[in-house]
Amino acid sequence: MSQSKIRYKVQRDTRNVLRRVGMTTGSRLVVAVSGGQDSLALLYALHDLAAEFGFELHGAHVNHSLRGADSEADAAFVGQTFQSLDIPYTVEQADVSAFRETQKISLEDAARQLRYDFFARVVEQQGADFVALGHTSDDQAETVLLRVIRGAGLAGLRGMDFLSDAEFSGVRMKLLRPLLGVSRLETAEFCRTLGLQPRLDESNLSTEFSRNRVRLEILPQMEAINPAVKDSLVRLSHSMARDYPYLESQVDRVEESVITFRTEMVEIDRAAFTDLAPAIQHHLIRRAVLLAKRDLIDLTQSHVEEMVRLMLGQPGKFLNLPGGLQFLVSYDSGFI
Amino acid sequence: MSQSKIRYKVQRDTRNVLRRVGMTTGSRLVVAVSGGQDSLALLYALHDLAAEFGFELHGAHVNHSLRGADSEADAAFVGQTFQSLDIPYTVEQADVSAFRETQKISLEDAARQLRYDFFARVVEQQGADFVALGHTSDDQAETVLLRVIRGAGLAGLRGMDFLSDAEFSGVRMKLLRPLLGVSRLETAEFCRTLGLQPRLDESNLSTEFSRNRVRLEILPQMEAINPAVKDSLVRLSHSMARDYPYLESQVDRVEESVITFRTEMVEIDRAAFTDLAPAIQHHLIRRAVLLAKRDLIDLTQSHVEEMVRLMLGQPGKFLNLPGGLQFLVSYDSGFI
Repeated sequence: MSQSKIRYKVQRDTRNVLRRVGMTTGSRLVVAVSGGQDSLALLYALHDLAAEFGFELHGAHVNHSLRGADSEADAAFVGQTFQSLDIPYTVEQADVSAFRETQKISLEDAARQLRYDFFARVVEQQGADFVALGHTSDDQAETVLLRVIRGAGLAGLRGMDFLSDAEFSGVRMKLLRPLLGVSRLETAEFCRTLGLQPRLDESNLSTEFSRNRVRLEILPQMEAINPAVKDSLVRLSHSMARDYPYLESQVDRVEESVITFRTEMVEIDRAAFTDLAPAIQHHLIRRAVLLAKRDLIDLTQSHVEEMVRLMLGQPGKFLNLPGGLQFLVSYDSGFI
Repeated sequence: MSQSKIRYKVQRDTRNVLRRVGMTTGSRLVVAVSGGQDSLALLYALHDLAAEFGFELHGAHVNHSLRGADSEADAAFVGQTFQSLDIPYTVEQADVSAFRETQKISLEDAARQLRYDFFARVVEQQGADFVALGHTSDDQAETVLLRVIRGAGLAGLRGMDFLSDAEFSGVRMKLLRPLLGVSRLETAEFCRTLGLQPRLDESNLSTEFSRNRVRLEILPQMEAINPAVKDSLVRLSHSMARDYPYLESQVDRVEESVITFRTEMVEIDRAAFTDLAPAIQHHLIRRAVLLAKRDLIDLTQSHVEEMVRLMLGQPGKFLNLPGGLQFLVSYDSGFI
């Protein structure tokens, strides 16, 4: 792709996402920059579009302190970049290793949680509405593949969306991912075109993280079978992002006649449930859990399959659900 | 699992599939046996159930001649096994290497095509209705993963079914896969329990085939991330096998008002099409191609996406489809 073409493509994709979410004058946008090629490309693309849309940018960088002097140098580089573009910014240091120890979670989970908690604080401090993230189509392919590996259905295989709602540390924010249609090769080319020298995040080269195992070992193996496997995974996410909302809309149509709220309880009518198509039964069970629990965290496909089985079987059975909830089946109804 | 338990499980799974397909007295069943643990387990399970259901078994083995003396020994072993069980059988030799050369296809494709052509001949000679295959849950996981890699949507991710219709060399047959709920570890245990000594198919250890790459390199890498990844893949296929027919049933409901047969042409009404949900638009386009072409061979997700785009865009565009078909969009309709 020629120099002007790649710049045009990144700008066009970013502009399309900003339009789609109805970005307006006076909006405040936090842009998350690690210093790598993806977030750097995003930063420059957004900076170019700030005047056109009339939004205000605020830079955010978290120093994960995982790589000593390299982490420091990243933070310094990102700070200088923000300054050179005249963008106000917040840089924060986080002790991921210590946090991981206390929380007994993976390094990956610890880093992500601290990062998003930081974004939430910046969003609150700046009175911002959006956090822009530099995820590319390569990240999307990796995410979809990770979800295949970890066990997802249609819902999970949608992957990341251009716009999603998130809540961290009690702060609600909208996550924007304008570069989901741009590949990592293209962000590198974009940076080269602008004469930028992105930092190489060494932690990306470690295989300690599941994502890096996917990136560095599994995807290259898959590319030996299908060189366009990343495109296939991205296309799979598109196909699921179409099919899933349609199935959800069909659940909307029947929900009222099958699910009833009782005091602190969700009731599912067995007779009405039995009449539904198997696909709708499964999606409706997910909906019922969402209503009872307010999230679907740790709810697996096998929970859902077992709940459907109990709904269609003999009464008097129960099942423990994540979050300390129980699912009970009486003669007439299932209760969560 | 105890000796009696594993035997019970394999028998129960096989019996359930035979019941589900309505196996009746006098049915004729061809069982495909390579000599490996999976097909051997299937053979013994079917042999045990033959009297209960009253079907007649005919054994089939194709010697792919890919491994010299080992292939000969496999064929001899399988022949002796059929004899010891008093099951009539057909063993045939096929020259996969030569066939591959003339057809310019992969070794994997050549072997599969010759194998199924052979089954078709045996089915015809024996007046049989069914071919029973020893595919396990491990094969299912590999199939789903291969389809993820090669680029499938909901339809492809259903994987293999317990019962499917197939046509080879002009012969229609029903393929039965009773062991899809049984793992490879379990067929090995089943064989051990019965004191059987299955042949080790050395070609399974080569990484020449994509499937073997998946089995020997990619899945073990994935198991490092999620030890239950095979279960996840099998569950994914179940979830798609539920969702896909539901979406197809929704296409059934609207098909008549959107698609019309013309002389040697399928016409899709643009106004009616535009009103459909995006998910239904995509599934309906696949349906239209199926009606026009009688199969979906080589039709990719990106063909479908492009056709939808054209249906919703300006008239006067066209697109080449697999099988020499063309898709044209006029002011009022799309034509295949």
